[in-house]
Amino acid sequence: MLSPGLSDEQAVPFDDRGLAYGDGLFETVLLRDGGPVLWRYHTSRLAKGCRRLNIPLPSQAALDATWQGDPTAELEVLKLILTRGSGGRGYAQPDQVTPRLVSRRTPFQPSAERWQQGVTVRLCDLRLGHQPRLAGIKHLNRLENVLARQEWSDATIAEGVLADTHGLVVEATSMNVFWQQAGQVLTPLLDQCGVAGTLRAALIEQGAVAQSSLPLQQLGAVERLWVANSVQGVWPVTSLLAANGSLIQRWPLSKLDSFQRLAHQLLGVA
Amino acid sequence: MLSPGLSDEQAVPFDDRGLAYGDGLFETVLLRDGGPVLWRYHTSRLAKGCRRLNIPLPSQAALDATWQGDPTAELEVLKLILTRGSGGRGYAQPDQVTPRLVSRRTPFQPSAERWQQGVTVRLCDLRLGHQPRLAGIKHLNRLENVLARQEWSDATIAEGVLADTHGLVVEATSMNVFWQQAGQVLTPLLDQCGVAGTLRAALIEQGAVAQSSLPLQQLGAVERLWVANSVQGVWPVTSLLAANGSLIQRWPLSKLDSFQRLAHQLLGVA
Repeated sequence: MLSPGLSDEQAVPFDDRGLAYGDGLFETVLLRDGGPVLWRYHTSRLAKGCRRLNIPLPSQAALDATWQGDPTAELEVLKLILTRGSGGRGYAQPDQVTPRLVSRRTPFQPSAERWQQGVTVRLCDLRLGHQPRLAGIKHLNRLENVLARQEWSDATIAEGVLADTHGLVVEATSMNVFWQQAGQVLTPLLDQCGVAGTLRAALIEQGAVAQSSLPLQQLGAVERLWVANSVQGVWPVTSLLAANGSLIQRWPLSKLDSFQRLAHQLLGVA
Repeated sequence: MLSPGLSDEQAVPFDDRGLAYGDGLFETVLLRDGGPVLWRYHTSRLAKGCRRLNIPLPSQAALDATWQGDPTAELEVLKLILTRGSGGRGYAQPDQVTPRLVSRRTPFQPSAERWQQGVTVRLCDLRLGHQPRLAGIKHLNRLENVLARQEWSDATIAEGVLADTHGLVVEATSMNVFWQQAGQVLTPLLDQCGVAGTLRAALIEQGAVAQSSLPLQQLGAVERLWVANSVQGVWPVTSLLAANGSLIQRWPLSKLDSFQRLAHQLLGVA
Protein backbone atom coordinates (compact mmCIF):
# COMPACT_ATOMS: atom_id res chain seq x y z
CA MET A 1 0.00 0.00 0.00
CA LEU A 2 1.18 3.51 -0.76
CA SER A 3 1.76 5.78 2.19
CA PRO A 4 -1.41 7.90 2.46
CA GLY A 5 0.66 11.05 2.08
CA LEU A 6 1.97 9.89 -1.26
CA SER A 7 -1.21 8.42 -2.66
CA ASP A 8 -2.47 10.21 -5.75
CA GLU A 9 -6.00 9.62 -4.57
CA GLN A 10 -5.41 12.04 -1.71
CA ALA A 11 -4.69 15.02 -3.93
CA VAL A 12 -7.47 17.18 -5.31
CA PRO A 13 -7.39 18.88 -8.70
CA PHE A 14 -7.13 22.63 -9.20
CA ASP A 15 -10.79 22.91 -10.07
CA ASP A 16 -12.04 21.20 -6.91
CA ARG A 17 -14.59 23.46 -5.27
CA GLY A 18 -13.38 22.53 -1.82
CA LEU A 19 -10.10 24.22 -2.68
CA ALA A 20 -11.64 27.05 -4.69
CA TYR A 21 -14.32 28.12 -2.23
CA GLY A 22 -14.13 25.89 0.83
CA ASP A 23 -17.23 24.33 -0.74
CA GLY A 24 -17.41 21.20 1.35
CA LEU A 25 -17.33 19.61 4.78
CA PHE A 26 -14.94 17.65 6.95
CA GLU A 27 -14.94 15.28 9.87
CA THR A 28 -12.18 14.35 12.28
CA VAL A 29 -12.87 10.95 13.81
CA LEU A 30 -11.15 9.02 16.57
CA LEU A 31 -10.44 5.41 15.56
CA ARG A 32 -9.99 2.98 18.42
CA ASP A 33 -8.59 -0.39 17.34
CA GLY A 34 -9.59 0.55 13.81
CA GLY A 35 -13.20 1.33 14.65
CA PRO A 36 -14.67 4.85 14.54
CA VAL A 37 -15.85 6.34 17.85
CA LEU A 38 -19.17 8.23 17.79
CA TRP A 39 -19.39 7.36 14.10
CA ARG A 40 -23.18 7.75 14.05
CA TYR A 41 -22.78 11.35 15.23
CA HIS A 42 -20.12 12.08 12.65
CA THR A 43 -22.18 10.74 9.77
CA SER A 44 -25.24 12.53 11.11
CA ARG A 45 -23.41 15.88 11.20
CA LEU A 46 -22.01 15.24 7.73
CA ALA A 47 -25.50 14.51 6.45
CA LYS A 48 -26.81 17.70 8.03
CA GLY A 49 -23.99 19.66 6.40
CA CYS A 50 -24.77 18.09 3.03
CA ARG A 51 -28.40 19.13 3.35
CA ARG A 52 -27.43 22.67 4.25
CA LEU A 53 -24.97 23.02 1.38
CA ASN A 54 -26.98 20.91 -1.05
CA ILE A 55 -24.16 18.44 -1.64
CA PRO A 56 -25.18 14.80 -2.31
CA LEU A 57 -24.28 12.63 0.70
CA PRO A 58 -22.01 9.70 -0.24
CA SER A 59 -23.32 6.21 0.44
CA GLN A 60 -22.81 4.70 3.88
CA ALA A 61 -20.53 2.14 2.22
CA ALA A 62 -18.34 4.91 0.80
CA LEU A 63 -18.17 6.61 4.19
CA ASP A 64 -17.39 3.35 5.98
CA ALA A 65 -14.62 2.63 3.50
CA THR A 66 -12.70 5.63 4.83
CA TRP A 67 -11.95 3.80 8.08
CA GLN A 68 -12.08 0.16 7.04
CA GLY A 69 -8.73 -1.53 6.71
CA ASP A 70 -6.11 -2.67 9.17
CA PRO A 71 -5.29 -0.16 11.91
CA THR A 72 -1.69 1.00 12.19
CA ALA A 73 -2.04 1.97 15.84
CA GLU A 74 -4.43 1.42 18.73
CA LEU A 75 -5.61 5.00 18.31
CA GLU A 76 -5.76 6.86 15.03
CA VAL A 77 -7.39 10.01 13.75
CA LEU A 78 -9.36 9.71 10.55
CA LYS A 79 -9.79 12.97 8.72
CA LEU A 80 -12.24 12.97 5.84
CA ILE A 81 -12.98 15.82 3.50
CA LEU A 82 -16.08 15.88 1.32
CA THR A 83 -16.21 18.55 -1.38
CA ARG A 84 -18.76 19.42 -4.03
CA GLY A 85 -16.20 18.05 -6.48
CA SER A 86 -14.88 19.70 -9.60
CA GLY A 87 -16.61 22.70 -11.08
CA GLY A 88 -16.05 25.47 -13.53
CA ARG A 89 -15.02 29.00 -12.70
CA GLY A 90 -17.76 30.82 -10.83
CA TYR A 91 -19.91 30.14 -7.81
CA ALA A 92 -22.75 28.41 -9.67
CA GLN A 93 -22.47 24.69 -9.16
CA PRO A 94 -22.08 22.44 -12.21
CA ASP A 95 -25.20 20.80 -13.63
CA GLN A 96 -23.82 17.45 -12.60
CA VAL A 97 -22.33 17.46 -9.11
CA THR A 98 -19.97 14.59 -8.34
CA PRO A 99 -18.81 15.02 -4.75
CA ARG A 100 -15.21 14.15 -3.94
CA LEU A 101 -14.42 12.23 -0.75
CA VAL A 102 -10.81 12.06 0.38
CA SER A 103 -9.49 10.84 3.70
CA ARG A 104 -6.40 10.08 5.71
CA ARG A 105 -5.62 8.09 8.84
CA THR A 106 -2.88 9.13 11.22
CA PRO A 107 -1.69 7.44 14.44
CA PHE A 108 -2.69 9.52 17.44
CA GLN A 109 -2.09 9.74 21.16
CA PRO A 110 -4.28 11.97 23.33
CA SER A 111 -2.76 13.88 26.23
CA ALA A 112 -3.55 12.02 29.44
CA GLU A 113 -1.65 14.75 31.21
CA ARG A 114 -4.17 17.35 30.10
CA TRP A 115 -7.03 15.08 31.21
CA GLN A 116 -5.49 14.73 34.64
CA GLN A 117 -3.75 18.06 35.25
CA GLY A 118 -6.12 20.37 33.41
CA VAL A 119 -5.17 23.17 31.05
CA THR A 120 -4.77 26.91 30.73
CA VAL A 121 -6.98 28.60 28.13
CA ARG A 122 -7.12 32.19 26.97
CA LEU A 123 -9.79 34.45 25.51
CA CYS A 124 -9.39 35.30 21.83
CA ASP A 125 -9.67 38.83 20.49
CA LEU A 126 -11.34 37.68 17.29
CA ARG A 127 -15.14 37.65 17.38
CA LEU A 128 -17.00 35.05 15.34
CA GLY A 129 -19.42 36.53 12.81
CA HIS A 130 -23.03 35.38 12.65
CA GLN A 131 -24.12 33.20 9.76
CA PRO A 132 -27.04 30.94 10.71
CA ARG A 133 -26.91 29.17 7.32
CA LEU A 134 -23.47 27.80 8.21
CA ALA A 135 -23.74 27.55 12.00
CA GLY A 136 -23.17 24.18 13.64
CA ILE A 137 -21.94 22.27 10.58
CA LYS A 138 -18.28 21.39 10.04
CA HIS A 139 -17.72 23.16 6.73
CA LEU A 140 -14.41 24.01 5.10
CA ASN A 141 -14.61 27.80 5.65
CA ARG A 142 -12.48 27.96 8.75
CA LEU A 143 -10.45 31.15 8.42
CA GLU A 144 -11.93 32.54 11.63
CA ASN A 145 -10.56 29.55 13.54
CA VAL A 146 -7.21 29.88 11.78
CA LEU A 147 -6.95 33.58 12.65
CA ALA A 148 -7.99 32.94 16.24
CA ARG A 149 -5.36 30.21 16.59
CA GLN A 150 -2.72 32.65 15.36
CA GLU A 151 -3.29 34.84 18.39
CA TRP A 152 -0.94 32.84 20.61
CA SER A 153 2.06 30.57 20.28
CA ASP A 154 2.76 29.84 23.97
CA ALA A 155 2.60 26.04 24.18
CA THR A 156 1.42 26.19 27.80
CA ILE A 157 -1.87 27.66 26.56
CA ALA A 158 -3.96 24.74 25.38
CA GLU A 159 -6.87 26.50 23.75
CA GLY A 160 -8.49 29.85 23.00
CA VAL A 161 -12.11 30.67 23.79
CA LEU A 162 -14.09 32.47 21.11
CA ALA A 163 -17.08 34.74 21.54
CA ASP A 164 -19.35 36.04 18.80
CA THR A 165 -19.92 39.63 17.76
CA HIS A 166 -22.59 39.89 20.47
CA GLY A 167 -20.06 38.93 23.14
CA LEU A 168 -21.51 35.47 23.82
CA VAL A 169 -19.24 32.47 24.36
CA VAL A 170 -19.34 30.13 21.33
CA GLU A 171 -16.52 27.58 21.35
CA ALA A 172 -12.78 27.09 21.57
CA THR A 173 -10.75 27.19 18.35
CA SER A 174 -11.04 23.42 17.83
CA MET A 175 -13.13 22.24 20.79
CA ASN A 176 -16.48 22.89 22.37
CA VAL A 177 -16.83 24.71 25.67
CA PHE A 178 -18.74 23.35 28.68
CA TRP A 179 -19.30 24.99 32.03
CA GLN A 180 -21.06 24.21 35.27
CA GLN A 181 -23.57 26.59 36.84
CA ALA A 182 -25.81 25.71 39.77
CA GLY A 183 -24.55 22.17 39.42
CA GLN A 184 -25.70 21.82 35.81
CA VAL A 185 -23.36 21.37 32.84
CA LEU A 186 -24.10 23.79 29.99
CA THR A 187 -22.73 24.48 26.52
CA PRO A 188 -23.42 27.36 24.12
CA LEU A 189 -26.27 27.28 21.65
CA LEU A 190 -24.68 27.17 18.22
CA ASP A 191 -27.41 28.60 16.04
CA GLN A 192 -25.46 31.62 14.76
CA CYS A 193 -21.90 30.33 14.47
CA GLY A 194 -19.55 27.64 15.78
CA VAL A 195 -19.16 23.93 15.14
CA ALA A 196 -21.45 21.50 16.97
CA GLY A 197 -19.07 18.75 18.05
CA THR A 198 -20.01 15.09 18.05
CA LEU A 199 -19.06 14.56 21.69
CA ARG A 200 -21.22 17.58 22.51
CA ALA A 201 -24.10 16.04 20.54
CA ALA A 202 -23.77 12.72 22.35
CA LEU A 203 -23.68 14.44 25.75
CA ILE A 204 -26.78 16.49 24.92
CA GLU A 205 -28.56 13.37 23.66
CA GLN A 206 -27.74 11.64 26.94
CA GLY A 207 -29.23 14.54 28.88
CA ALA A 208 -25.91 15.27 30.55
CA VAL A 209 -25.57 18.74 29.03
CA ALA A 210 -28.05 21.51 28.20
CA GLN A 211 -27.64 24.36 25.73
CA SER A 212 -27.55 27.88 27.06
CA SER A 213 -26.03 31.34 26.56
CA LEU A 214 -23.14 32.86 28.45
CA PRO A 215 -21.71 36.35 28.04
CA LEU A 216 -17.93 36.23 27.78
CA GLN A 217 -17.47 38.47 30.81
CA GLN A 218 -19.30 35.89 32.97
CA LEU A 219 -17.02 33.03 31.97
CA GLY A 220 -14.67 33.61 34.88
CA ALA A 221 -17.57 33.27 37.33
CA VAL A 222 -18.69 29.74 36.38
CA GLU A 223 -18.27 26.92 38.89
CA ARG A 224 -16.25 24.76 36.53
CA LEU A 225 -15.08 24.97 32.94
CA TRP A 226 -14.02 22.36 30.37
CA VAL A 227 -13.00 22.25 26.71
CA ALA A 228 -13.61 18.99 24.88
CA ASN A 229 -13.93 17.23 21.58
CA SER A 230 -14.30 13.68 20.34
CA VAL A 231 -10.61 13.26 19.52
CA GLN A 232 -8.83 14.93 22.45
CA GLY A 233 -11.42 14.11 25.11
CA VAL A 234 -12.18 16.45 28.01
CA TRP A 235 -9.67 18.94 29.40
CA PRO A 236 -10.66 20.59 32.68
CA VAL A 237 -9.74 24.26 32.61
CA THR A 238 -7.67 25.28 35.62
CA SER A 239 -6.65 28.77 34.46
CA LEU A 240 -8.42 31.30 32.29
CA LEU A 241 -6.36 34.15 30.85
CA ALA A 242 -7.45 37.33 29.12
CA ALA A 243 -6.18 37.93 25.59
CA ASN A 244 -3.43 40.11 27.07
CA GLY A 245 -2.25 37.23 29.26
CA SER A 246 -3.59 38.47 32.59
CA LEU A 247 -5.22 35.92 34.86
CA ILE A 248 -9.02 36.02 34.99
CA GLN A 249 -9.73 32.96 37.09
CA ARG A 250 -8.32 29.72 38.47
CA TRP A 251 -10.30 26.60 39.27
CA PRO A 252 -9.06 23.74 41.44
CA LEU A 253 -8.97 20.28 39.88
CA SER A 254 -11.89 18.17 40.99
CA LYS A 255 -11.19 14.79 42.54
CA LEU A 256 -14.42 13.49 41.08
CA ASP A 257 -15.03 14.92 37.62
CA SER A 258 -18.22 13.11 36.67
CA PHE A 259 -18.58 15.15 33.48
CA GLN A 260 -15.18 14.08 32.24
CA ARG A 261 -15.81 10.50 33.30
CA LEU A 262 -19.09 10.30 31.38
CA ALA A 263 -17.59 11.91 28.28
CA HIS A 264 -14.61 9.59 28.36
CA GLN A 265 -16.93 6.62 28.65
CA LEU A 266 -18.56 7.77 25.42
CA LEU A 267 -15.11 7.88 23.83
CA GLY A 268 -14.16 4.44 25.14
CA VAL A 269 -11.37 5.72 27.37
CA ALA A 270 -10.54 2.91 29.78
CA MET B 1 2.84 21.27 -22.69
CA LEU B 2 0.39 19.30 -20.63
CA SER B 3 -3.19 20.45 -20.64
CA PRO B 4 -3.57 22.53 -17.47
CA GLY B 5 -6.31 20.19 -16.25
CA LEU B 6 -3.95 17.25 -16.39
CA SER B 7 -0.85 18.87 -15.03
CA ASP B 8 0.26 17.43 -11.72
CA GLU B 9 1.40 20.86 -10.64
CA GLN B 10 -2.21 22.02 -10.56
CA ALA B 11 -3.32 19.50 -7.95
CA VAL B 12 -2.93 20.19 -4.27
CA PRO B 13 -2.20 17.52 -1.68
CA PHE B 14 -4.66 16.37 0.96
CA ASP B 15 -2.88 18.33 3.67
CA ASP B 16 -3.01 21.66 1.85
CA ARG B 17 -4.55 24.22 4.17
CA GLY B 18 -6.38 25.88 1.31
CA LEU B 19 -8.38 22.69 0.95
CA ALA B 20 -8.61 21.94 4.65
CA TYR B 21 -9.72 25.36 5.89
CA GLY B 22 -9.99 27.70 2.92
CA ASP B 23 -6.73 29.06 4.33
CA GLY B 24 -5.66 31.13 1.37
CA LEU B 25 -6.54 33.68 -1.27
CA PHE B 26 -7.37 33.80 -4.95
CA GLU B 27 -7.40 36.20 -7.85
CA THR B 28 -9.23 36.07 -11.16
CA VAL B 29 -7.45 38.17 -13.74
CA LEU B 30 -8.36 39.18 -17.27
CA LEU B 31 -5.51 38.56 -19.72
CA ARG B 32 -5.60 40.60 -22.91
CA ASP B 33 -3.16 39.43 -25.56
CA GLY B 34 -1.38 37.55 -22.80
CA GLY B 35 -0.97 40.56 -20.52
CA PRO B 36 -2.82 40.94 -17.21
CA VAL B 37 -5.32 43.79 -16.94
CA LEU B 38 -5.30 45.79 -13.67
CA TRP B 39 -2.44 43.55 -12.52
CA ARG B 40 -1.18 46.14 -10.03
CA TYR B 41 -4.57 46.09 -8.32
CA HIS B 42 -4.67 42.29 -8.24
CA THR B 43 -1.21 41.99 -6.70
CA SER B 44 -2.04 44.79 -4.28
CA ARG B 45 -5.19 43.01 -3.09
CA LEU B 46 -3.30 39.74 -2.83
CA ALA B 47 -0.63 41.46 -0.73
CA LYS B 48 -3.29 42.94 1.51
CA GLY B 49 -4.87 39.50 1.94
CA CYS B 50 -1.47 38.01 2.78
CA ARG B 51 -0.93 40.61 5.46
CA ARG B 52 -4.36 39.97 6.94
CA LEU B 53 -3.93 36.20 6.99
CA ASN B 54 -0.22 36.31 7.77
CA ILE B 55 0.74 34.31 4.68
CA PRO B 56 4.11 35.15 3.08
CA LEU B 57 3.55 36.91 -0.24
CA PRO B 58 5.27 35.16 -3.17
CA SER B 59 7.87 37.14 -5.08
CA GLN B 60 6.74 39.38 -7.91
CA ALA B 61 8.59 37.05 -10.29
CA ALA B 62 6.58 34.06 -9.04
CA LEU B 63 3.34 35.99 -9.44
CA ASP B 64 4.29 37.22 -12.91
CA ALA B 65 5.15 33.67 -13.95
CA THR B 66 1.47 32.73 -13.58
CA TRP B 67 0.60 34.73 -16.70
CA GLN B 68 3.83 34.71 -18.66
CA GLY B 69 3.89 32.41 -21.64
CA ASP B 70 2.20 32.43 -25.01
CA PRO B 71 -1.49 33.31 -24.96
CA THR B 72 -3.92 30.77 -26.40
CA ALA B 73 -6.60 33.37 -27.10
CA GLU B 74 -6.93 37.15 -27.33
CA LEU B 75 -8.75 37.09 -24.01
CA GLU B 76 -8.11 34.62 -21.22
CA VAL B 77 -8.94 34.39 -17.56
CA LEU B 78 -6.08 33.64 -15.20
CA LYS B 79 -7.15 32.14 -11.92
CA LEU B 80 -4.51 31.89 -9.26
CA ILE B 81 -4.87 30.34 -5.84
CA LEU B 82 -2.40 31.03 -3.05
CA THR B 83 -2.67 28.84 0.04
CA ARG B 84 -0.73 28.67 3.27
CA GLY B 85 0.64 25.41 1.93
CA SER B 86 0.75 22.05 3.63
CA GLY B 87 0.18 21.79 7.35
CA GLY B 88 -0.57 19.27 10.01
CA ARG B 89 -3.97 18.52 11.47
CA GLY B 90 -5.24 21.46 13.50
CA TYR B 91 -5.65 25.17 12.96
CA ALA B 92 -2.21 26.18 14.22
CA GLN B 93 0.01 26.92 11.28
CA PRO B 94 3.21 24.92 10.84
CA ASP B 95 6.45 26.41 12.16
CA GLN B 96 7.69 26.70 8.60
CA VAL B 97 5.04 28.03 6.22
CA THR B 98 5.68 27.36 2.54
CA PRO B 99 2.83 28.94 0.60
CA ARG B 100 1.53 27.09 -2.44
CA LEU B 101 0.73 29.03 -5.61
CA VAL B 102 -1.26 27.28 -8.33
CA SER B 103 -2.85 28.83 -11.38
CA ARG B 104 -4.73 28.14 -14.59
CA ARG B 105 -5.42 30.09 -17.77
CA THR B 106 -8.64 29.61 -19.68
CA PRO B 107 -9.80 31.26 -22.93
CA PHE B 108 -12.62 33.69 -22.22
CA GLN B 109 -15.16 35.80 -24.03
CA PRO B 110 -17.14 38.46 -22.17
CA SER B 111 -20.77 39.09 -23.01
CA ALA B 112 -21.00 42.15 -25.24
CA GLU B 113 -24.74 41.57 -25.24
CA ARG B 114 -24.91 42.16 -21.50
CA TRP B 115 -22.80 45.30 -21.86
CA GLN B 116 -25.17 46.64 -24.51
CA GLN B 117 -28.57 45.28 -23.50
CA GLY B 118 -28.20 45.32 -19.73
CA VAL B 119 -29.19 42.56 -17.35
CA THR B 120 -31.81 41.44 -14.87
CA VAL B 121 -30.62 40.94 -11.30
CA ARG B 122 -32.44 39.66 -8.24
CA LEU B 123 -32.13 40.17 -4.51
CA CYS B 124 -30.76 37.23 -2.55
CA ASP B 125 -32.36 35.91 0.62
CA LEU B 126 -29.01 35.09 2.20
CA ARG B 127 -27.53 37.84 4.35
CA LEU B 128 -23.75 38.19 4.54
CA GLY B 129 -22.36 37.92 8.06
CA HIS B 130 -20.01 40.55 9.44
CA GLN B 131 -16.35 39.71 9.84
CA PRO B 132 -14.13 42.79 9.57
CA ARG B 133 -10.99 40.65 9.77
CA LEU B 134 -11.89 39.06 6.43
CA ALA B 135 -13.81 41.90 4.76
CA GLY B 136 -12.59 43.16 1.41
CA ILE B 137 -9.96 40.51 0.71
CA LYS B 138 -10.49 37.68 -1.77
CA HIS B 139 -10.03 34.72 0.55
CA LEU B 140 -11.03 31.13 -0.09
CA ASN B 141 -13.94 31.04 2.40
CA ARG B 142 -16.71 31.62 -0.09
CA LEU B 143 -19.60 29.44 1.06
CA GLU B 144 -21.86 32.47 1.48
CA ASN B 145 -21.40 33.29 -2.20
CA VAL B 146 -21.95 29.65 -3.15
CA LEU B 147 -25.19 29.47 -1.14
CA ALA B 148 -26.41 32.78 -2.55
CA ARG B 149 -25.71 31.61 -6.10
CA GLN B 150 -27.79 28.49 -5.42
CA GLU B 151 -30.88 30.61 -4.91
CA TRP B 152 -31.68 30.79 -8.63
CA SER B 153 -31.08 28.82 -11.79
CA ASP B 154 -32.98 30.99 -14.31
CA ALA B 155 -30.35 31.87 -16.92
CA THR B 156 -32.10 35.17 -17.70
CA ILE B 157 -31.09 36.40 -14.22
CA ALA B 158 -27.49 37.56 -14.51
CA GLU B 159 -26.64 38.22 -10.89
CA GLY B 160 -27.93 38.28 -7.32
CA VAL B 161 -27.52 41.25 -5.00
CA LEU B 162 -26.45 40.52 -1.43
CA ALA B 163 -27.11 42.56 1.68
CA ASP B 164 -25.53 42.08 5.08
CA THR B 165 -27.25 41.17 8.33
CA HIS B 166 -27.93 44.89 8.89
CA GLY B 167 -29.81 45.10 5.59
CA LEU B 168 -27.18 47.15 3.77
CA VAL B 169 -26.28 46.39 0.15
CA VAL B 170 -22.82 44.76 -0.08
CA GLU B 171 -22.15 43.21 -3.48
CA ALA B 172 -23.43 40.78 -6.09
CA THR B 173 -22.43 37.12 -5.80
CA SER B 174 -19.35 37.59 -8.00
CA MET B 175 -19.40 41.29 -8.89
CA ASN B 176 -19.42 44.64 -7.17
CA VAL B 177 -22.49 46.87 -7.16
CA PHE B 178 -22.51 50.50 -8.28
CA TRP B 179 -25.40 52.94 -8.30
CA GLN B 180 -26.02 56.53 -9.21
CA GLN B 181 -27.61 58.99 -6.80
CA ALA B 182 -27.80 62.75 -7.39
CA GLY B 183 -25.59 62.19 -10.42
CA GLN B 184 -22.78 60.59 -8.38
CA VAL B 185 -21.68 56.96 -8.76
CA LEU B 186 -21.44 55.14 -5.43
CA THR B 187 -20.46 51.66 -4.25
CA PRO B 188 -20.84 50.02 -0.83
CA LEU B 189 -18.21 50.36 1.85
CA LEU B 190 -16.77 46.89 2.34
CA ASP B 191 -15.43 47.09 5.87
CA GLN B 192 -17.61 44.34 7.37
CA CYS B 193 -17.95 41.82 4.52
CA GLY B 194 -17.74 41.52 0.75
CA VAL B 195 -14.89 41.40 -1.76
CA ALA B 196 -13.32 44.67 -2.88
CA GLY B 197 -12.95 44.19 -6.62
CA THR B 198 -9.97 45.44 -8.58
CA LEU B 199 -12.10 47.36 -11.09
CA ARG B 200 -13.85 48.97 -8.11
CA ALA B 201 -10.46 49.89 -6.64
CA ALA B 202 -9.30 51.46 -9.90
CA LEU B 203 -12.51 53.45 -10.25
CA ILE B 204 -12.24 54.72 -6.67
CA GLU B 205 -8.60 55.65 -7.23
CA GLN B 206 -9.60 57.61 -10.33
CA GLY B 207 -12.18 59.52 -8.32
CA ALA B 208 -15.00 58.19 -10.48
CA VAL B 209 -16.71 56.33 -7.63
CA ALA B 210 -17.20 57.08 -3.91
CA GLN B 211 -17.95 54.62 -1.11
CA SER B 212 -21.25 54.88 0.66
CA SER B 213 -24.03 52.91 2.36
CA LEU B 214 -27.37 51.90 0.89
CA PRO B 215 -30.18 50.03 2.64
CA LEU B 216 -31.46 47.21 0.47
CA GLN B 217 -34.99 48.60 0.43
CA GLN B 218 -33.68 51.79 -1.23
CA LEU B 219 -31.98 49.97 -4.08
CA GLY B 220 -35.01 50.21 -6.33
CA ALA B 221 -35.05 54.00 -5.94
CA VAL B 222 -31.55 54.71 -7.29
CA GLU B 223 -31.16 56.61 -10.56
CA ARG B 224 -29.07 53.91 -12.19
CA LEU B 225 -27.60 50.59 -11.17
CA TRP B 226 -24.68 48.49 -12.44
CA VAL B 227 -22.89 45.28 -11.53
CA ALA B 228 -19.28 44.99 -12.60
CA ASN B 229 -15.99 43.22 -12.19
CA SER B 230 -12.60 43.23 -13.87
CA VAL B 231 -13.30 40.12 -15.95
CA GLN B 232 -16.89 40.60 -17.13
CA GLY B 233 -16.83 44.39 -17.34
CA VAL B 234 -19.87 46.54 -16.55
CA TRP B 235 -23.43 45.30 -16.89
CA PRO B 236 -26.10 48.00 -16.63
CA VAL B 237 -29.05 46.68 -14.60
CA THR B 238 -32.33 47.13 -16.44
CA SER B 239 -34.55 45.04 -14.14
CA LEU B 240 -34.37 44.38 -10.42
CA LEU B 241 -36.38 41.47 -9.04
CA ALA B 242 -37.21 40.53 -5.48
CA ALA B 243 -36.09 37.10 -4.25
CA ASN B 244 -39.60 35.82 -5.01
CA GLY B 245 -39.29 36.98 -8.63
CA SER B 246 -41.59 40.00 -8.45
CA LEU B 247 -40.43 43.13 -10.24
CA ILE B 248 -39.06 45.90 -8.01
CA GLN B 249 -37.83 48.35 -10.62
CA ARG B 250 -36.92 48.83 -14.27
CA TRP B 251 -34.37 51.29 -15.58
CA PRO B 252 -34.07 52.37 -19.23
CA LEU B 253 -30.77 51.81 -20.97
CA SER B 254 -28.74 54.96 -21.21
CA LYS B 255 -27.50 56.09 -24.61
CA LEU B 256 -24.43 57.58 -22.97
CA ASP B 257 -23.21 55.42 -20.12
CA SER B 258 -20.10 57.32 -19.08
CA PHE B 259 -19.54 55.04 -16.09
CA GLN B 260 -19.43 51.96 -18.28
CA ARG B 261 -17.24 53.73 -20.82
CA LEU B 262 -14.69 54.76 -18.21
CA ALA B 263 -14.64 51.30 -16.62
CA HIS B 264 -14.22 49.63 -20.00
CA GLN B 265 -11.35 51.96 -20.81
CA LEU B 266 -9.64 50.70 -17.66
CA LEU B 267 -10.19 47.15 -18.91
CA GLY B 268 -8.88 47.97 -22.38
CA VAL B 269 -12.22 47.29 -24.11
CA ALA B 270 -11.94 48.84 -27.58
